[in-house]
Amino acid sequence: MLRPNLLLRAEEDRKPMANPPDTTKERQQETETPVSPLFGSCPIPIFEHKQIVLGHGSGGKLTADLIDKIFLPAFRNPVLDKLDDQAVVSIGGARVAFTTDSFVVTPIFFPGGDIGRLAVHGTVNDLAMSGAQPMYLSAAFILEEGLPVDDLRRIVESMRAMAAEAGVQFITGDTKVVDRGKGDQIFINTTGIGIIPDGVNISADRARPGDAILLSGYLGDHGMAIMSQREGLEFEGAIESDCASLHTLVAAMLAAPTATPDFIHCLRDPTRGGAATTLNEIAKRANVGMHLNERAIPVRESVRGACEVLGLDPLYVANEGKLLAVVRADMADAVLAQMRAHPLGRDAAIIGEVVPEHPGMVLMKTEIGGTRVLDVMFGEQLPRIC
Amino acid sequence: MLRPNLLLRAEEDRKPMANPPDTTKERQQETETPVSPLFGSCPIPIFEHKQIVLGHGSGGKLTADLIDKIFLPAFRNPVLDKLDDQAVVSIGGARVAFTTDSFVVTPIFFPGGDIGRLAVHGTVNDLAMSGAQPMYLSAAFILEEGLPVDDLRRIVESMRAMAAEAGVQFITGDTKVVDRGKGDQIFINTTGIGIIPDGVNISADRARPGDAILLSGYLGDHGMAIMSQREGLEFEGAIESDCASLHTLVAAMLAAPTATPDFIHCLRDPTRGGAATTLNEIAKRANVGMHLNERAIPVRESVRGACEVLGLDPLYVANEGKLLAVVRADMADAVLAQMRAHPLGRDAAIIGEVVPEHPGMVLMKTEIGGTRVLDVMFGEQLPRIC
Repeated sequence: MLRPNLLLRAEEDRKPMANPPDTTKERQQETETPVSPLFGSCPIPIFEHKQIVLGHGSGGKLTADLIDKIFLPAFRNPVLDKLDDQAVVSIGGARVAFTTDSFVVTPIFFPGGDIGRLAVHGTVNDLAMSGAQPMYLSAAFILEEGLPVDDLRRIVESMRAMAAEAGVQFITGDTKVVDRGKGDQIFINTTGIGIIPDGVNISADRARPGDAILLSGYLGDHGMAIMSQREGLEFEGAIESDCASLHTLVAAMLAAPTATPDFIHCLRDPTRGGAATTLNEIAKRANVGMHLNERAIPVRESVRGACEVLGLDPLYVANEGKLLAVVRADMADAVLAQMRAHPLGRDAAIIGEVVPEHPGMVLMKTEIGGTRVLDVMFGEQLPRIC
Repeated sequence: MLRPNLLLRAEEDRKPMANPPDTTKERQQETETPVSPLFGSCPIPIFEHKQIVLGHGSGGKLTADLIDKIFLPAFRNPVLDKLDDQAVVSIGGARVAFTTDSFVVTPIFFPGGDIGRLAVHGTVNDLAMSGAQPMYLSAAFILEEGLPVDDLRRIVESMRAMAAEAGVQFITGDTKVVDRGKGDQIFINTTGIGIIPDGVNISADRARPGDAILLSGYLGDHGMAIMSQREGLEFEGAIESDCASLHTLVAAMLAAPTATPDFIHCLRDPTRGGAATTLNEIAKRANVGMHLNERAIPVRESVRGACEVLGLDPLYVANEGKLLAVVRADMADAVLAQMRAHPLGRDAAIIGEVVPEHPGMVLMKTEIGGTRVLDVMFGEQLPRIC
């Protein structure tokens, strides 16, 4: 599967990737705080934008600013303040997980998936990251006038198949249509409800020094699949999105044999902003440090090569079928064994540990023996990746 | 408040409304089944569109076709098949109502409200129409690059204020940003969870011959407020959106004194497609006929006049703060009294009754003594009204 030699061919009628799309540059110049159009190399942006820029949807620093300065002050409450990927509330005696996501990915069909598939997996995964059994989904479509009905059918069929596979039901929905040029083919919101089993208590603020950090498989597949499709690039060893529903993997992890339960402290799927941003969020929420070992982090050669060519870092590229787990140290090997026995965790690895030093910071020992600080993503690396 | 004389002034630099926007005409000619651009006068459209047209988001016949032919066959299950405005499922012993809506209204600020206000009221009302106490909301934003942050702040502040007023909490959210020209300022999805009290059982299929049909107030205010703003029209007696959260009105109705509970059979808020489309949906679901009395239906003079000038029918114009109730006959007066004692039901009226004849059809005795068949709305009357 891994191919050491990467062949990059830009289609002749498309822009080579050395020049990112011009539109980005033009757009960002219209804002007061210019953000460099170069991928992953933005100068420090401050929030005081007067207009929304693409980076506000990156899942990184600018998104956090928008949430901290606009949304949280208005909507603040103890459930929302936890800033997990799902809210947990008590309903009728059950602990219910509740999460929402709008999907605006472009292109809407890509190697390994489509926007409909993503809309099911994304929300199922946000539920699963609380340990919940996903139960019910809503689907709300914003269609652009002129969308081919055949495309819609294909997307709906994906959603049907993925929901059936994940064992969730769509029980309510909504459809809006916007004028041509006021949308982009199709946007899908899915919102989900799941039930958290007794004894499970997973939240970003529960990471503790000594905990092990586990990753379920190769990083960066989804982002690079979208990127290659979007820019018309072909890589040897075609890169496919990893998008998948992870709740059965989580159930397998929770089933690791132990005398003392509650050994999974945090779970997150590293989507927008990638693994580096996700780990930073956990480190900040729990006020702990993290040490990663670059050598232990699984990245396919094809993805690594493509990232090198495009000037991207796999640690910041979005995934749609991977999870990061912070696990009590004594249970790390048992959880790892459970993961590796599951089809979606075959390539799982222990990639680092939680430490008491430098709280809120993630450090990585690089392959060549140095130490690198991994910060949250600034600006926008790959817009509209999900 | 009512002004018998209506003054209509089209701003000079805008198209007079006798000619609807040209774009509609151009767009619809691109589809295989041409839909007349004249408001409310579309010829019979068949579903076999190859592309999505604005009418698929109307809430009328085309929306129903899209649901019946694309969404239901894929997602079919007993909860979804009820086609109520909310799903009802049992969670941890509680009956939980679950509903989703995306809001794409344009303009985003209008007399009497804004898109944020609408996004709270719309979802609270869909919950309330099951008799549920609304509890929790999610908010998912799709922002267009370039949206002024001040506009976003204003909308978020509206959402905060309306949620506080309605006693609901935003507990989870999502933000995406799309490139300039791939969205339209801001789209908001809100999805809500509510708890249905014991003994309450409200669903469109429960209308029975003999039941009374009640309406909570004046029809058409929201649609005409949007229309006047969008087209730059000024009417004497400014028309404001009626948008409001109706759950306290529903609670008041359910509190009507009775020895035998379960007297409210159906509740619906007549949004897209208006009261006529909503009543048709109930008539079809319950397989009953309906007789309405036009004289009894409250429509403000200003709205009636504006509708006449624009060639619209108030019975098909969207409302965002009104409800229709189908109530057991012996309780109609008691429920009406409860409604009139509530600020949002002051102008409530009994507007008709459910009959065994002509199942699935709604007939109206007109003011001049004739009988008119009210069908569901065809095509699109007012695009992007919510």
